Amino acid sequence: MTEKGGGAPVARTVLQQCLQARLQVKPADELSEAEFVQIDRGMVIYICFFKGATDDILPKMVSTLLNLRLCETDSGKLASVLELPGSVLIVPQATLGGKAKGRGMQYHNNINKEDGLRLYDAFVSLCEKELMAASGGNKAEVTVKHGTYGNRQVLKIDTNGPYTHLMEF
Amino acid sequence: MTEKGGGAPVARTVLQQCLQARLQVKPADELSEAEFVQIDRGMVIYICFFKGATDDILPKMVSTLLNLRLCETDSGKLASVLELPGSVLIVPQATLGGKAKGRGMQYHNNINKEDGLRLYDAFVSLCEKELMAASGGNKAEVTVKHGTYGNRQVLKIDTNGPYTHLMEF
Repeated sequence: MTEKGGGAPVARTVLQQCLQARLQVKPADELSEAEFVQIDRGMVIYICFFKGATDDILPKMVSTLLNLRLCETDSGKLASVLELPGSVLIVPQATLGGKAKGRGMQYHNNINKEDGLRLYDAFVSLCEKELMAASGGNKAEVTVKHGTYGNRQVLKIDTNGPYTHLMEF
Repeated sequence: MTEKGGGAPVARTVLQQCLQARLQVKPADELSEAEFVQIDRGMVIYICFFKGATDDILPKMVSTLLNLRLCETDSGKLASVLELPGSVLIVPQATLGGKAKGRGMQYHNNINKEDGLRLYDAFVSLCEKELMAASGGNKAEVTVKHGTYGNRQVLKIDTNGPYTHLMEF
């Protein structure tokens, strides 16, 4: 894990393998129904950037998360999401940066919204690029989907064991 | 957060609020179908104990997790799971203790199975006690359900935004 000087992480991710996951990307309004994205077999990445995070951590982050053996094949062997091959659902999750203070949570260490959005978009693009390269351009089989930054992440996840992991960078 | 001397945590939890969550507690076999437990509105607690964890951290852990305002009421206000009032689903999750080594994960810091099971059982009991006390003994309204330690945690979760939090002790 890459760590910033002083040992404080600049990004926190929680990973769960899934059989299917569905995320709202646009809430319903008077004119239209809610919109969702969905993946089948693969991995959900919940992500939060902290103050001090910069673009140069992204390639290492993406490479690590997509290549670490955090999922399980049908035969019970551990495999990376690229090896499965599986899809990826990226969920911005600012709450991951919370620290307890009394009975409430504080988010003072979270990155500002503007930089967070930029890093998030770049992270998603890099994941798409790496997944596409690994799948040999076979778009039908695997895909990267993602939530909209700064919005409520209405999420439904179905797992055969989430194998929840924490990775900080 | 309670921290052990040297700053290393002895327990790691990931929290998600849910509208409904269902967990397998016994896989199907030739004689019977799989068995599940289920909660409606409330909080999922994924939990992993590390080496050095002892029973005396449990009261503080349970009190913190059940009283921290990690959930959202219908009116959009933050509330603890006790305040909602909501149910609790506890999921043993040894993978949370993983550290990346090359492309694999290592779990050298996880507690041994015997002590882990004992702490897990005690943690579940304390949660049940505290939830029951807070709900005034109204068993119908809220409940504590939990997975079986050491087994695959086949989990399905439906959220209105998981609000994923990390808490270490």
